[in-house]
Amino acid sequence: MARILTVTLNPALDVTVRVSHLVPGEVNRSQSSVTHAAGKGVNVAQVLADLGHTLTVSGFLGEDNPHAFEALFEHRGFVDAFIRVPGETRSNIKLAEDDGRVTDLNGPGPLVSELAQQALLDKLDQIGASHDAVVVAGSLPRGVSAQWLRELLLRLKAMGLKVVFDSSGEALKEGLSAGPWLIKPNTEELSDALGCDVSDLAAQVGAATQLLAKGIEHVVISDGAQGVNWFSRRAALHAQPPKVRVASTVGAGDSLLAGMLHGLISGHSPEQTLCTATAIAAMAVTQIGFGISDAVQLATLESGVRVRPLTKE
Amino acid sequence: MARILTVTLNPALDVTVRVSHLVPGEVNRSQSSVTHAAGKGVNVAQVLADLGHTLTVSGFLGEDNPHAFEALFEHRGFVDAFIRVPGETRSNIKLAEDDGRVTDLNGPGPLVSELAQQALLDKLDQIGASHDAVVVAGSLPRGVSAQWLRELLLRLKAMGLKVVFDSSGEALKEGLSAGPWLIKPNTEELSDALGCDVSDLAAQVGAATQLLAKGIEHVVISDGAQGVNWFSRRAALHAQPPKVRVASTVGAGDSLLAGMLHGLISGHSPEQTLCTATAIAAMAVTQIGFGISDAVQLATLESGVRVRPLTKE
Repeated sequence: MARILTVTLNPALDVTVRVSHLVPGEVNRSQSSVTHAAGKGVNVAQVLADLGHTLTVSGFLGEDNPHAFEALFEHRGFVDAFIRVPGETRSNIKLAEDDGRVTDLNGPGPLVSELAQQALLDKLDQIGASHDAVVVAGSLPRGVSAQWLRELLLRLKAMGLKVVFDSSGEALKEGLSAGPWLIKPNTEELSDALGCDVSDLAAQVGAATQLLAKGIEHVVISDGAQGVNWFSRRAALHAQPPKVRVASTVGAGDSLLAGMLHGLISGHSPEQTLCTATAIAAMAVTQIGFGISDAVQLATLESGVRVRPLTKE
Repeated sequence: MARILTVTLNPALDVTVRVSHLVPGEVNRSQSSVTHAAGKGVNVAQVLADLGHTLTVSGFLGEDNPHAFEALFEHRGFVDAFIRVPGETRSNIKLAEDDGRVTDLNGPGPLVSELAQQALLDKLDQIGASHDAVVVAGSLPRGVSAQWLRELLLRLKAMGLKVVFDSSGEALKEGLSAGPWLIKPNTEELSDALGCDVSDLAAQVGAATQLLAKGIEHVVISDGAQGVNWFSRRAALHAQPPKVRVASTVGAGDSLLAGMLHGLISGHSPEQTLCTATAIAAMAVTQIGFGISDAVQLATLESGVRVRPLTKE
């Protein structure tokens, strides 16, 4: 089993509030309210822990409300290498009504100073080399530039780490130029970052070829229920997930990413790697949360995944 | 200084989210989100700590999100005697828009089992006697009856404790029959509990006389900016607070209650007691939060309070 570091620059508290019918301007009684420590790197860490790996988690945490994160890290046995910054980690509140309407209230999160950014670089310099891989995932907090993110990726790469990178928008665009080891955008995110539509296969093959030429070793492109395409120098594979009842897509992309890293770092065959990763993502979709709670269910989902070479389309 | 126990049966996380304009069904970006561990007994404890007393806090806390409370207790040096119950402590979310519209989303909180209720009684039996007074404040959680609350008050009283009681509705009505030492309803809460309007002075004097006859020693009735009436066997006083710019009335009633208990337990004169308590409540109104952050400002507010015998109206 490997030692893996995940970096979440902009974690969030996910708060899901169920309310029968939201009436603005009134006192509404909610039916339930559930809070989870979240953020892409934190989610990926949890799936990797389920797969047996040893985790260190890092990034920036607001010092006024770190408790849900600290409790999760303690419960999961994660090494806590987060830099504390003044303010509150953002809360993303989801108001779910009985008729299916969902209202999101996404918080701003703390402003991360240059001092804190330097403190994170110093921390990663200290601890990075003792890991087998690093996952940098999620959006950028206020105060952190895409250029700084690029420098971070280059620095981690220079330590000899396998750098897995998952973001979107300007951050993804800049990050790609650092040549990470593995990326996992969805078609929309990749189209957006490259400035061209990659939703059809020919365009996707062209884009992946370019990215591989830049030194990115694994280009994993997800497209929801349409499945996953994985391009590397060794293989170009497509995985079609089994049809499942969708409970929530939260954490599905993070699960796919964790599964890919797990297979690759464990020396599994490409087919097995993609098959398991796709099944873990499908499993996330069947849950309100995500993670590998049931090995038998995972095996059943794996048997429903169809992996085939992309070239035989 | 005294050792004071506060009991909060139904604490809450107060979450204030500022959003420019709330659009239901959409992704809204909030400007800020601030979370506070709250609940009447917890608020009262904080003001009493500001006044120099030593605090133990108790009641029921959801075991899934106790962290904000635990951090507050540690920060303030409170002895934590809360019973943990399965589930999350309720979140009361306040969505504040730029145009002043406020939408409340009040959570249900955990269901408190008979086992947990017994555990709290056992805990209070253990620790109660080492305190000089106990404050039981706030609403009842799901699963706890007003009759059980009445038994709780009688039990605390039987320990020889001064029992300060603040609640509303059915809980206030039942609690009154236990003959607590001090109560602090507002006119609306008292009218509601007694089933008769006590907003005019004659009715209020009648109601207070009845309550004193039942063994309640101090009947403190607040009426917002109209001031406070305090009835006891020794005195009937009115306090008129100074005019202040209202920032938020959150915690004002809890501040008044803490101030009254402070003065009485410290042996201050009735006039001084009511004057300081009224000033502390006024100070709460001038803040978004509450508490005694500035002794000079408190002294200024005290000099603006007018205390007079009620009979000389």
